[in-house]
Amino acid sequence: MLFHVYINVRVPHDADPEQIKRLGELEHGRAKALQEQGKWLHLWRVAGKFANVSIFDVESPAELHEILSSLPLYPFMEVEVTAMCQHPGAINKTE
Amino acid sequence: MLFHVYINVRVPHDADPEQIKRLGELEHGRAKALQEQGKWLHLWRVAGKFANVSIFDVESPAELHEILSSLPLYPFMEVEVTAMCQHPGAINKTE
Amino acid sequence: MLFHVYINVRVPHDADPEQIKRLGELEHGRAKALQEQGKWLHLWRVAGKFANVSIFDVESPAELHEILSSLPLYPFMEVEVTAMCQHPGAINKTE
Amino acid sequence: MLFHVYINVRVPHDADPEQIKRLGELEHGRAKALQEQGKWLHLWRVAGKFANVSIFDVESPAELHEILSSLPLYPFMEVEVTAMCQHPGAINKTE
Amino acid sequence: MLFHVYINVRVPHDADPEQIKRLGELEHGRAKALQEQGKWLHLWRVAGKFANVSIFDVESPAELHEILSSLPLYPFMEVEVTAMCQHPGAINKTE
Amino acid sequence: MLFHVYINVRVPHDADPEQIKRLGELEHGRAKALQEQGKWLHLWRVAGKFANVSIFDVESPAELHEILSSLPLYPFMEVEVTAMCQHPGAINKTE
Amino acid sequence: MLFHVYINVRVPHDADPEQIKRLGELEHGRAKALQEQGKWLHLWRVAGKFANVSIFDVESPAELHEILSSLPLYPFMEVEVTAMCQHPGAINKTE
Amino acid sequence: MLFHVYINVRVPHDADPEQIKRLGELEHGRAKALQEQGKWLHLWRVAGKFANVSIFDVESPAELHEILSSLPLYPFMEVEVTAMCQHPGAINKTE
Amino acid sequence: MLFHVYINVRVPHDADPEQIKRLGELEHGRAKALQEQGKWLHLWRVAGKFANVSIFDVESPAELHEILSSLPLYPFMEVEVTAMCQHPGAINKTE
Amino acid sequence: MLFHVYINVRVPHDADPEQIKRLGELEHGRAKALQEQGKWLHLWRVAGKFANVSIFDVESPAELHEILSSLPLYPFMEVEVTAMCQHPGAINKTE
Repeated sequence: MLFHVYINVRVPHDADPEQIKRLGELEHGRAKALQEQGKWLHLWRVAGKFANVSIFDVESPAELHEILSSLPLYPFMEVEVTAMCQHPGAINKTE
Repeated sequence: MLFHVYINVRVPHDADPEQIKRLGELEHGRAKALQEQGKWLHLWRVAGKFANVSIFDVESPAELHEILSSLPLYPFMEVEVTAMCQHPGAINKTE
Repeated sequence: MLFHVYINVRVPHDADPEQIKRLGELEHGRAKALQEQGKWLHLWRVAGKFANVSIFDVESPAELHEILSSLPLYPFMEVEVTAMCQHPGAINKTE
Repeated sequence: MLFHVYINVRVPHDADPEQIKRLGELEHGRAKALQEQGKWLHLWRVAGKFANVSIFDVESPAELHEILSSLPLYPFMEVEVTAMCQHPGAINKTE
Repeated sequence: MLFHVYINVRVPHDADPEQIKRLGELEHGRAKALQEQGKWLHLWRVAGKFANVSIFDVESPAELHEILSSLPLYPFMEVEVTAMCQHPGAINKTE
Repeated sequence: MLFHVYINVRVPHDADPEQIKRLGELEHGRAKALQEQGKWLHLWRVAGKFANVSIFDVESPAELHEILSSLPLYPFMEVEVTAMCQHPGAINKTE
Repeated sequence: MLFHVYINVRVPHDADPEQIKRLGELEHGRAKALQEQGKWLHLWRVAGKFANVSIFDVESPAELHEILSSLPLYPFMEVEVTAMCQHPGAINKTE
Repeated sequence: MLFHVYINVRVPHDADPEQIKRLGELEHGRAKALQEQGKWLHLWRVAGKFANVSIFDVESPAELHEILSSLPLYPFMEVEVTAMCQHPGAINKTE
Repeated sequence: MLFHVYINVRVPHDADPEQIKRLGELEHGRAKALQEQGKWLHLWRVAGKFANVSIFDVESPAELHEILSSLPLYPFMEVEVTAMCQHPGAINKTE
Repeated sequence: MLFHVYINVRVPHDADPEQIKRLGELEHGRAKALQEQGKWLHLWRVAGKFANVSIFDVESPAELHEILSSLPLYPFMEVEVTAMCQHPGAINKTE
């Protein structure tokens, strides 16, 4: 089941840059694993922003919540979730 | 080059339903052709709305504009375009 | 799987009142059937508005879209869908 | 009398994590008691957010205010209250 | 129980002025009766707008909905309801 | 002359709780005096929020500004002022 | 007493142009008279819009409402009223 | 003097397409003349929208208003004007 | 040339009160000088807020920017600039 | 390929002024180089704000992101990117 997730990362200017960098590296590792498992289907960066758009393919909203809330940078994220479904005009029915 | 496009279709309640249906069929044909050409990369429906999210892979903003403004339902669309780029954490670099 | 749906019904002032009344009756029949099937779990009216809040229990966003878009008053509805999950502090895990 | 309450918890990044954790545990205890008393009728988490949607069944807006403002995490909550009533199309008149 | 109600009346420019005038007169009659019954506690006009702010004293959100939705100009109203309670600093506890 | 004032109090999480408590007590004293003088005509709390709605009866916007800006919690307030007037349908012309 | 009034005129595209022109002429006559009486203290046009900003000097919000609601183009106006007062740093205390 | 102007053209679905087309042609002629006079310095289309961003170089806000309000499609335009000035970091001081 | 400027002053609660007071006094001195030069044509306070509305009469947007950005409290200001022009219905053409 | 970029710089009041000044100087140097390379086509300041509007001419959204995210003041910037294309009515086709 597909969810469209818009993530805006807002790092406060007085956060510890070392901690943010470390969390960012952990984040990339976690994102890689989730992509390899097929849970994190697509991941794009929004040009000009510290933001991304993702498509997740999960079993349920509960699994989506578990994934998102365990991301290392989650405490700094503003997250918007949108439930998606097959479009009748889409020719690729499996993505 | 990738663009994220959110399209909300607002059909006025006093539009001619026959004309809207005809435009919808033309729209599906046009969407199919553009998907087969690889221009319209992804197409999902937003659950509960007459709206969709698409990813277009085009040569330029000008080509994107030409594609969107020639869609049969374009006069009824509210369109939001967002320029996207590769995310450093994405493992699939070609989509 | 639970979705929270806010529905605001906006009937244009020049719509045919007879048609709206007829659609409203069909809507009640459809809502009754969906409640009896356990798909439409909760349905409340927002005080002072022609709007309601519902909880749907469906298989997927696609089933939710199918249900919502087939409601008789759908053409006049503004719909906001929010994916919900179990709250760790909820004592009733089955609703 | 039913109220729909949307609660968004915004913990500042420089709050003491130990204190937040302690408040979160107190919150769960309080939520459990209020659910057992039948005051806190429903409680769901919004997928992807540190937010929840609840339905409260209380005697008055004053009782609702007393309950909400005494929650341990209240100082970090953004709260939206909506007064609800029976929907004529609802088949379950007692919830 | 007190509710604060903001009502904005939006008459479409192509509505029949005679009908609007007739509805306005019915509205004043209905407002007078409800004030005399003590249901419609306060009624003020917003300077410069076809809008008003009211305080209703009713048994429940359901009674409030019944009153508002039966107002003659209701089809043209945008309504915002806010549940109110006693302020600890108010010296007049009965209004 | 009547003004409708919506006051939202936003206390920063790192403010000194003792100072806020002291300011709150001063605030209640000031509010009581202004109510007794007939300047602060009505005062209600918004259910679920650290916010209130008030009706002030003052000589001029200048007097209203003087009153509001001298409130002990003013530095933490977001204030929205709306000028009100008699509604032709109100039966009580003196409040 | 001074009020700042932002007026945005929205003429529907299917309004009768002759009627709008006639109302515009009446509006100018009325604005001239009110300026000569000293009620309509300042009147500027917002560059690029069918909108204006005015300062009114009136006895009360009620007088302001009476003036605004009797303007010939009032049915097409969106009006925002802001109560103003002397600024301690203003050197001209009489305008 | 430079002004940044965002123009969104909203053609109502029941406008006469012939009239809109004729106005569009007149608009292009007028835009061409103003560009040749150096008044309309830059003109770009927003990808995916019936909207454009322009830079005007005019004597005053009054001249800008005169130009914009005389455009053939002006009655269908939503216009946002922003006053611009030289940026200290710009190397081209004459554009 | 006239510009309408809305200034909202937001002093962070942890700013040094002595510094703010000193800046406020400098601000009044600067405002007085600019009024005497005829640059700062009007200055009003918004009732209930730490905000003001001003009309500036300057040579260009660049001069306006220079004036505003040199105000002592500028670092705490949210500023909205609107370009104004003569209204055809204004009888006083010189202000 | 042209992108319109609105940049609002929000410096927190407790940032180190020396660091901000140093970053501002680095920013000007970087902006100068990018203008000389023809990447940063236009750069204007918004009157009254610490904000600017720019037109970038880049190969792709990815290049735009790389440029923006490497600007010295980027951590304090709110950035809005809009993809632009040739307007059919523009007489200068090369800018």
